[in-house]
Amino acid sequence: MRDAYHEELDSISESLVEMARLVGSAIGRATTAMLDADLKLAESVIAADQKVDDLQHDLEGRAIALLARQQPVATDLRIVVTSLRMSADLERSGDLAQHVAKLARLRFPESPVPRDLQATILEMGQLAQRLMAKAGEVIITKDVDLALQLETDDDEMDLLHRTLFQHLMDDRWKHGIETAVDVTLLGRYYERFADHAVSVAKRVVYLVTGEHADDLQPDTLDQADAVVEA
Amino acid sequence: MRDAYHEELDSISESLVEMARLVGSAIGRATTAMLDADLKLAESVIAADQKVDDLQHDLEGRAIALLARQQPVATDLRIVVTSLRMSADLERSGDLAQHVAKLARLRFPESPVPRDLQATILEMGQLAQRLMAKAGEVIITKDVDLALQLETDDDEMDLLHRTLFQHLMDDRWKHGIETAVDVTLLGRYYERFADHAVSVAKRVVYLVTGEHADDLQPDTLDQADAVVEA
Repeated sequence: MRDAYHEELDSISESLVEMARLVGSAIGRATTAMLDADLKLAESVIAADQKVDDLQHDLEGRAIALLARQQPVATDLRIVVTSLRMSADLERSGDLAQHVAKLARLRFPESPVPRDLQATILEMGQLAQRLMAKAGEVIITKDVDLALQLETDDDEMDLLHRTLFQHLMDDRWKHGIETAVDVTLLGRYYERFADHAVSVAKRVVYLVTGEHADDLQPDTLDQADAVVEA
Repeated sequence: MRDAYHEELDSISESLVEMARLVGSAIGRATTAMLDADLKLAESVIAADQKVDDLQHDLEGRAIALLARQQPVATDLRIVVTSLRMSADLERSGDLAQHVAKLARLRFPESPVPRDLQATILEMGQLAQRLMAKAGEVIITKDVDLALQLETDDDEMDLLHRTLFQHLMDDRWKHGIETAVDVTLLGRYYERFADHAVSVAKRVVYLVTGEHADDLQPDTLDQADAVVEA
């Protein structure tokens, strides 16, 4: 009985890793689609999000079935409940990657990102993908040190976000309102994506160390803080 | 034993209602603080979010303890798991109200909202507050018809959001980039707040009707859709 239980638990963990892989790939491809104004690639990212949603739905069903059948307590119970939360983070990350891809589609055949911001957006996209890859690795390895690295990476994302705002708020901004709106939203998408990756990693830390949940809330993006320093 | 169980379940439900009340009040007060450029009110909204976070933290602890002690199955299990999700929606709504209040603080003594958009933003704030009040009522009454009303209200929010984008994309926009960025973010905050309220109501519908979870995902905000019609 315990073996069947741990097999089920492993399969939930594997689904989480697969979701992290899919959404990490999605944010990378969405960024490329946007910078290259590649409509086909954008469409493929938009369509692929269904797979992430299906995985989450399936995972939730299995987690609830497992709670009902096995009635885990203590650490085991915490693992299942935490898995449900991680899957919600990952599903939402997939939505955010899809938002980026939809913006690429909307502005096609142009890129929504002006030339002088492409390097910054590329960096944000790459960093987002890296954060999610690390989050996936943290789920597999339960490596607390690696999990803590994600916070440093997230600081880097905050810096990139501020750079974006500095461009936006610069009097020499010459790309008009539509592009300002697009870039504002993009900045938020990447920042939130990173927050969810950090949140996944922190939840693993919580499982491993039992550290208090208050310290495990994802850093809430505070756009106003970014604006104020811009 | 069952009585203790149902008492615990009721107390979780009461916490959800209290969270909905607090975040509904917060989005209303944050909107007022922003439109009136009232720094004190903004500060009070920012500080009050801690209470919502504490309630969520406490609720989660009690839900997990209840799972461990009572090992509910079937509907009872679904109620507890769904409560965890609702509390996450409500906590996030509180963050969004706080974002609005922080923008008010940031732009003080000015309002971030130009005169010709104040009516639209006021409507968005009122609608957001109304949506959350209804979500709270749905938690108490489990009224499926009322829950379904929230979807219609959310359509109204989408319309207001599009109105906002039309202003932004209008060639006659004269408020500059900083205000465009602020208004873009505000639109997103209200829209996401409404999504979370709808999500809470849909989760109640799921509990009552057992309707498939796929139909219960909150409508994902798709900013690109709003932009495209602007």
